[in-house]
Amino acid sequence: MLTTNPFEDDKLREECGIFGVSGADGASALVALGLHALQHRGQEAAGVTSWDGAHFHSHRAMGHVAGNFDREEVMGALRGQVACGHVRYSTTGETALRNVQPLYAELATGGFAVAHNGNISNAMFLRDDLVARGAIFQSTSDTEVILHLVATSSYRDPLDKFIDALRRVEGAYSLIVMTPNAMVACRDPLGIRPLVMGRLDDAYIFASETVALDVVGAEYVRSIEPGELVIVENGKLRSLRPFGETRARPCIFEWVYFSRPDSIAGDQSVYSVRKAIGAQLAIESPVEADLVIPVPDSGVPAALGYAQQSGIPFELGIIRSHYVGRTFIQPGDQIRRLGVKLKHNANRALIEGKSIILVDDSIVRGTTSLKIVEMMREAGAREVHMRIASPPTTNSCFYGVDTPEREKLLASRFSVEGMTDFIHADSLAFVSIDGLYKALGEAGRNDMAPRYCDACFTGDYPTRLTDHDAIDQLALHEAAE
Amino acid sequence: MLTTNPFEDDKLREECGIFGVSGADGASALVALGLHALQHRGQEAAGVTSWDGAHFHSHRAMGHVAGNFDREEVMGALRGQVACGHVRYSTTGETALRNVQPLYAELATGGFAVAHNGNISNAMFLRDDLVARGAIFQSTSDTEVILHLVATSSYRDPLDKFIDALRRVEGAYSLIVMTPNAMVACRDPLGIRPLVMGRLDDAYIFASETVALDVVGAEYVRSIEPGELVIVENGKLRSLRPFGETRARPCIFEWVYFSRPDSIAGDQSVYSVRKAIGAQLAIESPVEADLVIPVPDSGVPAALGYAQQSGIPFELGIIRSHYVGRTFIQPGDQIRRLGVKLKHNANRALIEGKSIILVDDSIVRGTTSLKIVEMMREAGAREVHMRIASPPTTNSCFYGVDTPEREKLLASRFSVEGMTDFIHADSLAFVSIDGLYKALGEAGRNDMAPRYCDACFTGDYPTRLTDHDAIDQLALHEAAE
Amino acid sequence: MLTTNPFEDDKLREECGIFGVSGADGASALVALGLHALQHRGQEAAGVTSWDGAHFHSHRAMGHVAGNFDREEVMGALRGQVACGHVRYSTTGETALRNVQPLYAELATGGFAVAHNGNISNAMFLRDDLVARGAIFQSTSDTEVILHLVATSSYRDPLDKFIDALRRVEGAYSLIVMTPNAMVACRDPLGIRPLVMGRLDDAYIFASETVALDVVGAEYVRSIEPGELVIVENGKLRSLRPFGETRARPCIFEWVYFSRPDSIAGDQSVYSVRKAIGAQLAIESPVEADLVIPVPDSGVPAALGYAQQSGIPFELGIIRSHYVGRTFIQPGDQIRRLGVKLKHNANRALIEGKSIILVDDSIVRGTTSLKIVEMMREAGAREVHMRIASPPTTNSCFYGVDTPEREKLLASRFSVEGMTDFIHADSLAFVSIDGLYKALGEAGRNDMAPRYCDACFTGDYPTRLTDHDAIDQLALHEAAE
Amino acid sequence: MLTTNPFEDDKLREECGIFGVSGADGASALVALGLHALQHRGQEAAGVTSWDGAHFHSHRAMGHVAGNFDREEVMGALRGQVACGHVRYSTTGETALRNVQPLYAELATGGFAVAHNGNISNAMFLRDDLVARGAIFQSTSDTEVILHLVATSSYRDPLDKFIDALRRVEGAYSLIVMTPNAMVACRDPLGIRPLVMGRLDDAYIFASETVALDVVGAEYVRSIEPGELVIVENGKLRSLRPFGETRARPCIFEWVYFSRPDSIAGDQSVYSVRKAIGAQLAIESPVEADLVIPVPDSGVPAALGYAQQSGIPFELGIIRSHYVGRTFIQPGDQIRRLGVKLKHNANRALIEGKSIILVDDSIVRGTTSLKIVEMMREAGAREVHMRIASPPTTNSCFYGVDTPEREKLLASRFSVEGMTDFIHADSLAFVSIDGLYKALGEAGRNDMAPRYCDACFTGDYPTRLTDHDAIDQLALHEAAE
Repeated sequence: MLTTNPFEDDKLREECGIFGVSGADGASALVALGLHALQHRGQEAAGVTSWDGAHFHSHRAMGHVAGNFDREEVMGALRGQVACGHVRYSTTGETALRNVQPLYAELATGGFAVAHNGNISNAMFLRDDLVARGAIFQSTSDTEVILHLVATSSYRDPLDKFIDALRRVEGAYSLIVMTPNAMVACRDPLGIRPLVMGRLDDAYIFASETVALDVVGAEYVRSIEPGELVIVENGKLRSLRPFGETRARPCIFEWVYFSRPDSIAGDQSVYSVRKAIGAQLAIESPVEADLVIPVPDSGVPAALGYAQQSGIPFELGIIRSHYVGRTFIQPGDQIRRLGVKLKHNANRALIEGKSIILVDDSIVRGTTSLKIVEMMREAGAREVHMRIASPPTTNSCFYGVDTPEREKLLASRFSVEGMTDFIHADSLAFVSIDGLYKALGEAGRNDMAPRYCDACFTGDYPTRLTDHDAIDQLALHEAAE
Repeated sequence: MLTTNPFEDDKLREECGIFGVSGADGASALVALGLHALQHRGQEAAGVTSWDGAHFHSHRAMGHVAGNFDREEVMGALRGQVACGHVRYSTTGETALRNVQPLYAELATGGFAVAHNGNISNAMFLRDDLVARGAIFQSTSDTEVILHLVATSSYRDPLDKFIDALRRVEGAYSLIVMTPNAMVACRDPLGIRPLVMGRLDDAYIFASETVALDVVGAEYVRSIEPGELVIVENGKLRSLRPFGETRARPCIFEWVYFSRPDSIAGDQSVYSVRKAIGAQLAIESPVEADLVIPVPDSGVPAALGYAQQSGIPFELGIIRSHYVGRTFIQPGDQIRRLGVKLKHNANRALIEGKSIILVDDSIVRGTTSLKIVEMMREAGAREVHMRIASPPTTNSCFYGVDTPEREKLLASRFSVEGMTDFIHADSLAFVSIDGLYKALGEAGRNDMAPRYCDACFTGDYPTRLTDHDAIDQLALHEAAE
Repeated sequence: MLTTNPFEDDKLREECGIFGVSGADGASALVALGLHALQHRGQEAAGVTSWDGAHFHSHRAMGHVAGNFDREEVMGALRGQVACGHVRYSTTGETALRNVQPLYAELATGGFAVAHNGNISNAMFLRDDLVARGAIFQSTSDTEVILHLVATSSYRDPLDKFIDALRRVEGAYSLIVMTPNAMVACRDPLGIRPLVMGRLDDAYIFASETVALDVVGAEYVRSIEPGELVIVENGKLRSLRPFGETRARPCIFEWVYFSRPDSIAGDQSVYSVRKAIGAQLAIESPVEADLVIPVPDSGVPAALGYAQQSGIPFELGIIRSHYVGRTFIQPGDQIRRLGVKLKHNANRALIEGKSIILVDDSIVRGTTSLKIVEMMREAGAREVHMRIASPPTTNSCFYGVDTPEREKLLASRFSVEGMTDFIHADSLAFVSIDGLYKALGEAGRNDMAPRYCDACFTGDYPTRLTDHDAIDQLALHEAAE
Repeated sequence: MLTTNPFEDDKLREECGIFGVSGADGASALVALGLHALQHRGQEAAGVTSWDGAHFHSHRAMGHVAGNFDREEVMGALRGQVACGHVRYSTTGETALRNVQPLYAELATGGFAVAHNGNISNAMFLRDDLVARGAIFQSTSDTEVILHLVATSSYRDPLDKFIDALRRVEGAYSLIVMTPNAMVACRDPLGIRPLVMGRLDDAYIFASETVALDVVGAEYVRSIEPGELVIVENGKLRSLRPFGETRARPCIFEWVYFSRPDSIAGDQSVYSVRKAIGAQLAIESPVEADLVIPVPDSGVPAALGYAQQSGIPFELGIIRSHYVGRTFIQPGDQIRRLGVKLKHNANRALIEGKSIILVDDSIVRGTTSLKIVEMMREAGAREVHMRIASPPTTNSCFYGVDTPEREKLLASRFSVEGMTDFIHADSLAFVSIDGLYKALGEAGRNDMAPRYCDACFTGDYPTRLTDHDAIDQLALHEAAE
């Protein structure tokens, strides 16, 4: 199983991965390895900032970690025992280098670097206020708001300035911050985005997922708690809880699709949870068929769970043919219709004359599901049943995930019957929201106090959405005139 | 399942894939798609030559098909309804552009292009003779010998010149040739390397594997026969057998590893054959264990066959973490030891405390097998049993496959017991040579008249090896002095 | 005569050229042409910002205008009828893209772009103060201080904010500023750096030199006055004098070397002034010789003036051999000694046995002068007399010219006799400071009220040097401890 | 004075420069320097081949010497004490890398490299014959014919093979050849293209011009004689004259334009000859005027000669404004009309109201002359007299110079009166053919036995033109049908 997906055009996309090291020789090389392991969380650009005890060094680049952060002239300049880095997708389409993180500023108290996974949901509101007071923004990133809030805070101590800034922002943020004295790792009060801590000899490591600890040979210690600030200063660790006790609401989609299957998230194996979702799906929505076929690559664990629960053989009916490496730009219009087969191919000898169950992790726009079903039919499948290892995706995310506008989500346009027709399947079923919670070890969803952020399935957003509401207000106002 | 392999440093490598189209608009675009589907057969360089009725056009490039043969300025110049192309690995290390095929020459009879999969085993002998007569070679490729033999043939007709040339070469060759009048596809008398024929509307298509037909939407017609020349001239097809009837000896490693699982080779599904090898392996070498784990990606079908035959659950215990795209060059020596984890990672939560069966397609040097076994042990595996879906690889190939020198092949250095120790496994077993033939539908290997070239397993080479013997002779001579 | 110099390693370097257009279709294309004509004023990087009535568009690049600002994808995006641009050398060695101008900020009053030729001599002092108040700087350029002073000014109107900012800065600045409503061109109260105005149909054009007007076919109107702000708003021009009447002190080195010979500066032809300096030099420091030979290319006009005044024939004794285009990096240490001949070559057949007068515009470190004299001797010159068309360069410039530290200036290390020895000449003479003023049409230098900034020759700096004095203070303080 | 020309679009272009070293450490670095000095003879591509006593090493690249042959990874691989190189323009438009010289072949007698300046005038005829006998050409270069003639020669010794080959070719050739045993430098029997010999310590050096000796610090020894072969073998020199005594006819255009002014050609200073032509022109075609203005850069020496002879002041009326480096691609159609000013600019302050004499070296198509005259008039010139330092160019060259087809040569379309009208000059005069010979020290042209190849002025071609006649024959034949 691979960490990329040939059908990723129709997947939700995590927008960022972050990684930090404090206290290791060649810290930036470890950061590069960690970011490489987190590349699935952001393929558009990457950046690394290091501190050598006297100076900060930064390099930011469009593109992958490999090819940029494995060149000696780049890595040799990123000196020091403290470093952090970032991989990103763009949300807005602004793909300029100036938006690539870690963001950095020279404050009166010294340099300040920040790497951010998540999304500040009142960033526009705060930015307008800061600009009115004379702040000059150098990026269009929501993260820069944090820098300016720190710069203009009236507190004297850099850490107090930072906490002062965090009190003013709302939304989702897992952050790694570097100052000349300390590395700080923190999560927002609900812990929407993940952040874990590890140990490698004397060094402390922070990462979006445990696989990034594995790749550098570090030991997994624990998750950063929601609302917690962990500070590494002079090789010592301390923890602050400036928001007091908070109720966790981690993003449930990390287990469905974002995290790598070999990661541990919230102390559960992502692979096992996905298999459990598949098994739950087999219980909730059984169907008689000859073969269970995963939609590669993200559907594989759920398909295995479905096959083991149902006793129907698991087989590879779709072969990824997209060769490792560069995207092939299809030449000429007359050739373009051949498109989807460049990336995968039906295992025709296996499929022909069979009734099959396709298992995928989610449906976003539905366009790819349609292509896959049709590819199976062209290869001679007798019946095609689609099973989805998540509930219908009906709502947009405002916490750092790239979701299409709501009107483009298949599940917000159609009922399950309508969706079945749309993708030309013989049957279609999604796991229930309670089934999803069961696979995570709960009795079901407690609607009074849900354990996860599942807004994309339920519309139940756990924070205020200041900027979004302001836009709605404006649209309303304009409509009223 | 993917068509690349994270452990490919320790695999035998097919050296070439070829693809030709006669009679379609945008022929070179079809060739590019076909080569993209054959990229696993040669990732080092690619070339395409087209004929527009008046002129030949060629483009050759180091690197992948994608990124080179999907650029409009390149493809727009490759005009015409007839085109052929080539992807290659280098055998000799000579990676110069001038060795990239199709090779092309302006002969007195007009242009002549040739794309070759295989290896001429008397190329050195022929080359020395040609140079002595005044020929100037422009490459170090064995294939160029064919060009000069054609150029200096005393026959008048281009096709006769070509057959005259073929009579002088020995070894393995599947060829696609273009002249102003015709496209010719042919295989050597033993049919060592594959070549299939397809049909897309009025066009004829030739390709190393059927997946390349699938990708362009062509219908699979049949294999080119060993010793057969198929000529397409003015849209009409004819077949010649200049060597008379010959006894086929196709390369058995195509089913073991080279061909894509979704290809049909010798009228058998490669995927099904691999599953059958896995099942045969479970029968020959059973072992009690908790999990069957494929070595990704090429071990997956055999592992499924093994799991289904044995009833032991199939699970993904190794996650490919090598991100799609560029190779990550590991920074610095102190970091290098982390190496192998960049490309894959143990699914620790699954492995811990379990007895596991690892299934892989072959062992070449054994270095990677050792790393995988150790990775499994580090992840907490209680017992690690290795099962290999081919017999021990004991001999070098001289027919167009990149094999290490014989002394580096693990199976030529050690007995199975010694190999078990070398890779630190609790047990190790290979499928038997008869078992391999059984998976291909035979009763076993008929040693008097084997149906396949299995020299890498048996040392039974089906042709003379003129150049190789000359080198041995020389070495012997030098040793005697 | 060419606008570059084969000996430019040992020349003072103007640090910037600026160019702006308001009111012309394809304004950014005109800016690109203008910057191309000003390329001799800054070859390290270039930038263009345009305003299309709704949005600002910017492109900045390392390297020359050609190759960057003649690419359709770049120029097509720089839409609008208003645009300005900048070419630069770096002073500090910080060659990052973020320092490339025009600098741009989104202020509360809208976008604000600025292109600057000169140097703010209290920039460090102002910057420290702004950072203490929470400003985040994105560059290390002194020019960014102006942006932050505008952003934090308490005035409401953008133009008032800008004047408020200018009142706080000291030093040399010719600026072109763009806001959504207006283009503003201004010079510091002493007019140290040049800035001229032109007209092309209905458009107003501002440029560092008149050659940039020539290249776009614009008519030269007049210089911007020292201390004047010229504002183009809605196609109308107005002029402000916020500093009242000021006494002009334009940089005299523009006539000596910086400006192109075909420019008109201060209403005088630069070519004619240079010839007049040469003639003055012939009067002040005559010598008997066979030939007058210019050091190419900047010494040519003065050499012609010298030859015409003295009656000694003007001949090309040094041939520029540096081929148009890329710098040749000399291979290997053993070859490096051949160095200087790559860029020029003695015209041996002419020189041999002759007594020659070499005419150059200035001597900075003297290293190149030494090489040239020796090259002439190697070519057989009997006597070599050096004549310099400027007084000895004894002091550093703090107004936007890249000068070596004072200790490296040959004229601050040696008397004229010492310099003569250093460069191995038979004689050496500089034009007198009064002679230089005479060539500019004055009776001589009025030491009470000199007409030009000639600090590099006289040490008489016309402004305060706040940052420089602070550093001296610090050095003094450290020395005292 | 610079070695390039802003008006080179309308100049004849020498097609090649060659340079060879035998017997120096770092030979290829010397070759790179030498080629850099010969870059004006060919800017399209360059190549270097070296011999390290055991192997040949080659690198060929499109573009300039600088940027290609100053990179350590390139030069480090070009090991050995013997090396030769080549710079080229393309004649045919075939700009492929395979045509870049030195050409190289592995012959039965070992490696054989050749660098060629000139043109084989029966190359097509010989090529057809060689291909009919089975030769495979790898380039479209006429030079490759020599390789195949050597390869197929029936002589045994490599030098005999080479002489055998030369006997079959006709036309112009200066060659540097490398074999494992020797470096051979030779010129065709008429010595049409130049080739000189120099000495640097123990090494022998061969170069197209003496400037290339100057740049490496070598001493000029003598020209290779027409029809002479100079062989360096084991550090010893010998000379052969396989064609017996021959009558020299060196190309006269080398003195007019091709060679650098600081070169010595045929033992005469090119600079001095050009000045003498200018003086002769002043005698033959005087005119009253205020200023003599050179068309930069190639017109400068003749203009100086004209000015000194006539007593009219020499002034720089045209300033090269084309900045060193890349060509500026003019953006947009509306801007394109500004074109010519990008590369030069009138020195308006000097020109205005004056009667001027423009001096240029030659007129080819006349388009640029027209632009220059008009630029002078726009700048206010009262009268514009054009004087040309060569006779009218009426005929094409077939000896390695890129000439437009005859119908495009202004002098073959018009009388001098017609040409005067075409370029809008007040008067126009060319130096006479006898005047040109006088400047070279002759009494005039001896039509019975001219000392130079002056076919471009006279149509008197000194060799057979087999290929050209065959084409004419064909055209005639077709016309007759």
